[in-house]
Formats: sequence, C-alpha cells, structure tokens
Amino acid sequence: MEISGILLTLFIILITAKIGGEIAESLGQPAVLGELVAGVVVGASVLGLVRENDFINLLAQIGAIVLLFEAGVTTEYESFMRVKFWALLVACVGVFFPFVLGYFVSHLYGLSVIESIFIGAALTATSVGITVRVFQDLGKLKSKEAQIVIGAAVVDDVIGLIILAVVIGIISSGSVSLLNILRVTGMAVAFLGGAIVIGKIAAPAILNFVHQMRVRGVLFVFSFAFCLIMAFVSHAIGLAPIVGAFAAGLILSRTDHQEHVVNQTKPIADIFVPIFFIMMGALVNVSLFNPFNPANHPILIFASSLFAVAIIGKVISGFVVFDKINKLLVGVGMLPRGEVGLIFAAYGLSHKIINQELYVAILIMVLLTTFVTPPLLKYIQNCKIN
Amino acid sequence: MEISGILLTLFIILITAKIGGEIAESLGQPAVLGELVAGVVVGASVLGLVRENDFINLLAQIGAIVLLFEAGVTTEYESFMRVKFWALLVACVGVFFPFVLGYFVSHLYGLSVIESIFIGAALTATSVGITVRVFQDLGKLKSKEAQIVIGAAVVDDVIGLIILAVVIGIISSGSVSLLNILRVTGMAVAFLGGAIVIGKIAAPAILNFVHQMRVRGVLFVFSFAFCLIMAFVSHAIGLAPIVGAFAAGLILSRTDHQEHVVNQTKPIADIFVPIFFIMMGALVNVSLFNPFNPANHPILIFASSLFAVAIIGKVISGFVVFDKINKLLVGVGMLPRGEVGLIFAAYGLSHKIINQELYVAILIMVLLTTFVTPPLLKYIQNCKIN
Repeated sequence: MEISGILLTLFIILITAKIGGEIAESLGQPAVLGELVAGVVVGASVLGLVRENDFINLLAQIGAIVLLFEAGVTTEYESFMRVKFWALLVACVGVFFPFVLGYFVSHLYGLSVIESIFIGAALTATSVGITVRVFQDLGKLKSKEAQIVIGAAVVDDVIGLIILAVVIGIISSGSVSLLNILRVTGMAVAFLGGAIVIGKIAAPAILNFVHQMRVRGVLFVFSFAFCLIMAFVSHAIGLAPIVGAFAAGLILSRTDHQEHVVNQTKPIADIFVPIFFIMMGALVNVSLFNPFNPANHPILIFASSLFAVAIIGKVISGFVVFDKINKLLVGVGMLPRGEVGLIFAAYGLSHKIINQELYVAILIMVLLTTFVTPPLLKYIQNCKIN
Repeated sequence: MEISGILLTLFIILITAKIGGEIAESLGQPAVLGELVAGVVVGASVLGLVRENDFINLLAQIGAIVLLFEAGVTTEYESFMRVKFWALLVACVGVFFPFVLGYFVSHLYGLSVIESIFIGAALTATSVGITVRVFQDLGKLKSKEAQIVIGAAVVDDVIGLIILAVVIGIISSGSVSLLNILRVTGMAVAFLGGAIVIGKIAAPAILNFVHQMRVRGVLFVFSFAFCLIMAFVSHAIGLAPIVGAFAAGLILSRTDHQEHVVNQTKPIADIFVPIFFIMMGALVNVSLFNPFNPANHPILIFASSLFAVAIIGKVISGFVVFDKINKLLVGVGMLPRGEVGLIFAAYGLSHKIINQELYVAILIMVLLTTFVTPPLLKYIQNCKIN
C-alpha cells in the first residue's frame, strides 16, 4: 500500500473511532463499543472505507500489544497479587466449562471429534483487551472485580494458547502426547514466572542506568522497546505477543518510573489502540447476519448455540469466587472473546481444521460476546446486582 | 513480514538509536548524528540486523511526517516575527547560493539537469533541530544571532519543501518548463499560505469543539489525525506529505492547545522519528566510503565538493545582515543540513531520481555539515570572531 492510502486510512480510523467512542459515551456506553460499531460501519461489508491490508493489520496487532502493555503498567501489582487465587480459579473454571459445553454442542451438531475439540478450544480465551477497555471506560479498573477478571483473562489467554498448541499437536500427530502438553504448559508458566521474577530484580537497575542517559526520551523509548522484546520472546516460545507485553507492563509498574511510563504510553495508546478495535469491527461481514436469507439459518442456529454456551460457561466462573464481590460482574467480565478467539478462527480456517461456515460461526460467537459485554457490564455495574 | 520480525526489528531500531544518540551527545555532537551512524551500523551493509521491508519503510515515512509535524507545532512564531527581516534575507541568500553552487558542481561532475537540480535542492535546507540544540547547549538560544538563525532555518525549511515540490513536479512531468515551475511553486505557496490562513480561522473553532468531547485522548487524536489528513492532501496535490505535516503543526502552534499537542506528540516522535533516522543510515552502503577502493574516488571527490559548496553557500548568508551581530556565527549556524536534506535524499533514491552513489554523496554532505557545526560554533563563540 502506498503512503497516501495509509495516511487516509489512518485518518478515517482515528476520526471514526473517536466519533464512535463519543457517541457511545453520550449514550452511557463504554467508548470501546462505539469504536467496534464504527469499525463495522467503515468496514468492507458496509461503507468499505477501511479495508484489510498488511500494514494496517500489523499496526492493529501492535495496537493490541500497546493496549496490554498499558494495562500491565497501570496494574496495581499488589492488588493483583491479593486476588491471584481467585483469578486462577476463575480462569480454570472459565476455561473448563466453555470447552466442555462447546465440545458437546459441536458434537450434537454432527461435527467430528477434532472439529469439536477445536471449537471447544476457541470458546476458552477471554479477550483481555476488551475487558480492560470496558473497565477503564467505567472507571473501575482498580476494583477487585476488575483485578480478578483481568488476572483470570491473562491466565486463560495462556491456557487458551496452550490448548491451541496442544490441539495443533493432536491434529498434526493424530495422538495426544502427555509430554507435549507438559512441554508447552511448562514453557508458558516458566516464561511468565521467570519474566516477572527476573524483571523484578533487573528492571529497576536497568532503568536507573538508562535514567542517567541524557538523550531525549531515552527512558520511555527503552521501556517501550522492553515491551516489544517481551512480546517478541512471548511469540517466539509459542505464546501470544500480548502475553509478553502485559508481563513487560507488569514489571515496569513496580519500578520508580511507573508514572513516567504511564504518561508517555498514553498518547501512543491513543493512536494505536483504536486501530485494533476498528479493524476488529471491520472484519464483520454484516450480510452473514441476515436472518431472512434461509442459507444463513443452519450456521446462525449453530452460532447462537455457541453464543449461549460461551455465555453460560463463563458466567458460571464468576460464582466460584467465595468472596464479597459482584460475582455476576466477574462472570460477565469474562465474556468477550476477542483477539485470541479470532486468532483461533483464522488459524483453524487456514489450516483446514474447520471450514468457512464453522469459521463464520466462531466469528459470530466472538463478535456477539464482544458486543454484549460493554452494555451488560455497564448495566450490572449500575444496578449493583450481586 | 510477520509480527515477530516486526517486533524484533523495532526493538533493535529503538535501542540502537538511543545508544547511538547517547554516544554522540557524550562526544559533544547532536544525537541525530549518532542515530544515523547507528543506522549505518545495524544496516544491511554492516551488521545486517535491520533490513528494508515495506512495513518498516512505511513507519519510517510516518516518522518523517511526525518529525515535521513536531517541528511545525514547536515553531516559535513570535520570536521569528521580531527578526523576520534579517531571517528572511539570510534564508533566501542561504537557499540561493547552495542551490546554484550545488547545481554547477553537479553539472561539472557530469550529472543530468534533473539530477543537478535535485542535488542543488538537497543542499538548501538548514536543520532547525540541530541548530536549536547547539545554541541551547551554548546557552545562547535567546541571542539575536540565534533568533536570526532559527528564523531563517524555519523559512529555508519551507523554501526547501517548496523546491522539493517543484523538483517532483518537474520530474513527474518530464520537462523543465518555466510554466511548470510557476505552477508547482504557486500550488505549494497556495497550499501552505491557504492552509495557514484557513487554519488560523478554522483550527481554533474545531479544536474548541473537539475539546468539549469527553472521550479519552480526543483532542490529541484529532490533532494527529489533522496532521495525517494534511499530509495526505499535500501528497494528493503533488507535494511531499511532510509539507502538509509541517503546515498542520504550524497551524496548531498558534492555537490555545499548542502546549498539550506538543506534550502528547513528544512520545509519538520519540518512537517514530528514530525509525526514520535509523532507516536513513541503514540505506548507506559503507563499501562506498572505502577510500582505498579507486572505484569510490569519483563519488568521494564529488561528496567533498558538495560539502565545500554547502559550507560556502551558507556562510555567505550570514554576511548579508548589516547589523551589529556576529555574522560568522549566523553563517555557521546555518550549516547543518539535517532531516530535510535526508528526506530529499531518501525521496530521490526511492523514486529513482538519484542512484545509490549520489544518495551516499548527499548523506556524506549532510553528515559532515552536521558534524562540523557544533565544534565550529563553540570555537567562534569563544574566540568572539566578528
């Protein structure tokens, strides 16, 4: 793509994202919902102003990385640690039920075992990005519920990616190897744990050294570069880049320079993050939602069933927390399947594990969970339902 | 390119840029010099850590746009107005002589008319950033000499951009006709003038409206989007995108929100601008610098001639100021050719107006003028040569 087209596309993305966000907020909804709807509107199936291309897609992926970095660096680590037990429990329950329910719904629909496992797996991972944004928009990012959901979402991202790796292993070898499952799991746990332990020791020393350098913007540039390399390492060992970005943010949140990094990250996030959300909205082909076209009926029914179990499976997870919190808020906070669900769908389609129709069904499930979460969270928050 | 490769490349770019900048500053040189040298080192012809690819090249182009946007928005309009007569005169003389001398040196070297015009044009624009930095380091930023140099540097940036526009117009039409030159010059002046006049009226009203929107980061995102659309329009009417970006910055510099836009642009520039300078350095094929290879002699001799006329042409400009000031200090202050010269070189190479050898010659000229200025200014300042 030429620079000219890039400039115009970025202009449209930024302006429509902010207008969409503003409209959503003026209707009492979180801004992210407006950004997603704006994405649908400017996407290929409606106005066609923003089309997929490699450059914008990569910027959108960097947008997701910046979003998780910002979430990490603004995390109150101490309050995260206070809820770590609940977060782990919510994550495990929130992976187990959607996986099992998704498997059985798919099996009932007549799919093969491999297809059913794959679809079950695609239902597992909560989108940290959307959840963070909604809680941010609601001004509730530091509440106990938000901390549990974010912690659990990070954990189930990791679990979801391990499941993806395992499913790929099963499909390529035709058998389930315990050794392989253990290897992938061990690597993920070692990366996150190791990064946080080593980072806790090394990061302050490195940053204090960098802090003595005189060249313009050096502290922030090194911090941002740290996010990039952590995302790279995370990807290199088979995890999603966003996991590394979150870990990088978490490490920096515990240094003396947290406030500076937060302030400098904000404009970067303001520019990059809307690209991610607009492109997620732009992926929607609205014609597949047309209920008056009988050809869409089987897949819409299957997608609706997936949507139902996607909701039930996650909402249950909130109720395992035996603490004085808004359990429904936690369960609903776990609903959105965003980038990881989309990564699953895209991977399955390109590796011929699932066909186009099942891809669309997963996509509908991902989009619906994403779209219902902001208003639901807002509603539950306001009604104080417990 | 995969996201993984992008993350690693960006990491290398940011880290080496800052280390290069730091080393340069600790040697009393401008940081930009260190970034360029760092780019040469990580580039394909030395370490090969950073290679050209479409994504990084587009980010580098956005880096140049952000750089000129920042230059525009931080322009000290008022201090320029106080010395505007001398600044304008210095700017015009300082554009005229390097252009004419550069043209004739190139012509003598056997280059075509188009190539000679292009190289003459690449010699015209003083680097505002480097000049400001050096006077800042000397504690002389508010002296009359510094004000004249900075004012003139801004003006010759604009003249340089107009010349670039004219040269591009000539090249795309294939002929040097007076009508064509007048047409493109008229368009450039009309665009800049029109943008500034309309912007002066419309921008405060639009920004004040946007300022009332509530959604996160809206004022800065709209400002940045304004930069993008101005760059797009500039490109659409046949000018370089950086012209529009500079104009956008200039317009915003005169609004009430200047300080906010400057603060928010800084981290964006911290991340994007080094990509531009590192990629500029990475384009250099170091084997062309080897003085022991006779094949390189013509280009090294040519580069030296360019360096000589680049100095003579600008030093003359200081002596047109008939006022009680240090004339040599003004002339030497005009020496460094920085970002605009590099943008010329990069544009010429990518549009096949100049070949790799001429690109290297321009780069040597830019690097040398940048390199000699800080020690020369210090020396003249200390010796009070008049």
